[in-house]
Amino acid sequence: MARINENYTRLPGSYLFSDIAKRVSAFTAAHPDRSIIRLGIGDVTRPLAPSVISALHQAVAEQADAATFRGYGPELGYDFLRQKIADVHYGRLGVKIDTDEIFVSDGAKSDTGNIGDIFAADSTVAVCDPVYPVYVDTNAMAGKAGHYQSSGHWDRILYLPCTQENGFIPEIPSPHVPAPELIYLCFPNNPTGSTINAIDLQDWVDYARRNGSVIFYDAAYESYITEDLPHSIYEIEGARECAIEFCSFSKTAGFTGIRLGFTVVPKELRIDGIALNSLWARRQSTKFNGASYLTQRAGEAVYSEQGQKEIRETIAYYQDNARVIREGLLAMGWSVFGGKNAPYIWLKTPQNLSSWEFFDLLLNKAGVVGTPGSGFGPAGEGYFRLTAFGSAENTAAAIERIRTLF
Amino acid sequence: MARINENYTRLPGSYLFSDIAKRVSAFTAAHPDRSIIRLGIGDVTRPLAPSVISALHQAVAEQADAATFRGYGPELGYDFLRQKIADVHYGRLGVKIDTDEIFVSDGAKSDTGNIGDIFAADSTVAVCDPVYPVYVDTNAMAGKAGHYQSSGHWDRILYLPCTQENGFIPEIPSPHVPAPELIYLCFPNNPTGSTINAIDLQDWVDYARRNGSVIFYDAAYESYITEDLPHSIYEIEGARECAIEFCSFSKTAGFTGIRLGFTVVPKELRIDGIALNSLWARRQSTKFNGASYLTQRAGEAVYSEQGQKEIRETIAYYQDNARVIREGLLAMGWSVFGGKNAPYIWLKTPQNLSSWEFFDLLLNKAGVVGTPGSGFGPAGEGYFRLTAFGSAENTAAAIERIRTLF
Repeated sequence: MARINENYTRLPGSYLFSDIAKRVSAFTAAHPDRSIIRLGIGDVTRPLAPSVISALHQAVAEQADAATFRGYGPELGYDFLRQKIADVHYGRLGVKIDTDEIFVSDGAKSDTGNIGDIFAADSTVAVCDPVYPVYVDTNAMAGKAGHYQSSGHWDRILYLPCTQENGFIPEIPSPHVPAPELIYLCFPNNPTGSTINAIDLQDWVDYARRNGSVIFYDAAYESYITEDLPHSIYEIEGARECAIEFCSFSKTAGFTGIRLGFTVVPKELRIDGIALNSLWARRQSTKFNGASYLTQRAGEAVYSEQGQKEIRETIAYYQDNARVIREGLLAMGWSVFGGKNAPYIWLKTPQNLSSWEFFDLLLNKAGVVGTPGSGFGPAGEGYFRLTAFGSAENTAAAIERIRTLF
Repeated sequence: MARINENYTRLPGSYLFSDIAKRVSAFTAAHPDRSIIRLGIGDVTRPLAPSVISALHQAVAEQADAATFRGYGPELGYDFLRQKIADVHYGRLGVKIDTDEIFVSDGAKSDTGNIGDIFAADSTVAVCDPVYPVYVDTNAMAGKAGHYQSSGHWDRILYLPCTQENGFIPEIPSPHVPAPELIYLCFPNNPTGSTINAIDLQDWVDYARRNGSVIFYDAAYESYITEDLPHSIYEIEGARECAIEFCSFSKTAGFTGIRLGFTVVPKELRIDGIALNSLWARRQSTKFNGASYLTQRAGEAVYSEQGQKEIRETIAYYQDNARVIREGLLAMGWSVFGGKNAPYIWLKTPQNLSSWEFFDLLLNKAGVVGTPGSGFGPAGEGYFRLTAFGSAENTAAAIERIRTLF
């Protein structure tokens, strides 16, 4: 008699963004005439860059001719793309990454969800609170999180509170707390939009090395950094011995629909002499068949000189939206965080409203959709996330609606 | 101190097709002048159908314009594609599948690899021998396979021998053997090219229902069936209560490079009242962000009237290759199986050569690459797989080279 993975039955409710989608659907069904501005889920709205479009058309054309048709690609990614990532993405940071340390995938969500596969099933895990829910839910599914508590925490996860008091930067755990084996960090942060400087990140790298922990560093939003802050954890000394980095084309080049990301596993990262690079290579070549050839060519085009110029324009467009939201809410006297080196704005809800109360109010009275901070973890209660990925018109209109409402 | 998943250290050597690639690379490096014909890995060579190409160009063009740009799609697949799969793929078989029972993914390899996630970590597993290595390796990685034995078997897996004696159809386990909880079946079979008729498949469905087992039915090659045989396990009574089906666009429409597949989890399939459909939906929406929009539009085009006509022509082309291989080797007096309702030809090696001896001989003396049967499991020793996915010219030339050699 087959048995299910009981860990699934411990997951509370459904996925945060599905919940939001349901409330929005119910509202639009009841009020078909009301216009909705969506600044909730972090999805982009600008079209793909002309260089990318041109590369996609060319790749499609290749698939139409037996002489240029490509079937199965290398599971870990085409060299033409891995080389560009090494040369352009890391090269300009002055970071040396070999092509066989780069694993191309269909996105950072898959990779951050799957990376736990290569570690012991009962590994201990630390996450920030608030946190991107995928880190927590995938660990819960794999049995690493333990049991869900009424507090909104899982009993086997070590939570690192990120609050206004600590500037939304997690503090190094006390030496009296057993060091977590796996540590998820994300900077610029989703959801708080906070960033980490090289000194604080060095502390985390040193902590991980001292304790033999592995850091999962999600750098999906690094292209939004404008100040002098690390874009990659490999800018930090010693990170090659303790960190795996996840990157994405989603927010950098608008690939949310066409799917592309990559993960870096440095060869120095070893446990008992076993290279994690080999384990991840084995996992990916056995359970994955490579990202779409079309999307990989699109990714290559992002790294051309013209492609870089074009994506920078789009990023600047979103950065300007972030400024409009940030300054608009600050002008109302609200407490607002992020939005400077990140596409996310994290705000303290006014009038001590709970995150979901504020969500419902904003949806029902202003037709603006955001994300309740409590959906990212208990420490997110009383906060709310807005994203900069809407159109400039909608973003300005949303702020105007919020101003009118309050 | 982080610990690795020790199951990875139990995996013998590397993935079969990587091994083959290495031997071929070494040969071509040593003999750059010799031409190689690859009938090994099951990769297609014909270009994408014109309808598909046209749909891809159109989808790319949509991504160039903010008004038609699409970002994140539904994680489980766009309705436009799920509806076509329900209407065309299953409709013509007279099988009713609801759209929310269809999960679109980046390919059957990912799904057959990931499906184990939703079952208990110590579930017992049965596979055919020989078998597509992904079924075994992914279970080994997840700890369900136990330990690897010198026999080439894993000690916690129940192997179902598929031999010339049983026509390469696995026999129902004796009632004295504890019934495996999860049973992998693949028909038309990879690697043997064998097919199962409705009566034998009904026996498996009845066995699974009697024992509460779940069948994972890999139907990736169903479009190669020409005779009156089941294309889907759901043509069999009771299968909706016990079977999950995997399908792929790779061999049906040449999507090996652009990645698309789907998995069906019927709503009647429940364990202790819990619908596996909900568990898989949760797994996919948490750990996956949907297949590329471009590829999903390409999949939709496959189901248009013109698309169906075009892919049938390509399938007929490969079927003719299969006939050429099959008849050519039969004419040499060899024992040959499959190749009739399947793109794979499974042959008994001549002169009692081992599978790898025959591989090396064929590579070195004839410049033909196939797949050693022993790579698919111990019962594959002394057999060899050739695929019909080459060009017609190469296929004919390969058979001519083999004829000359022997």
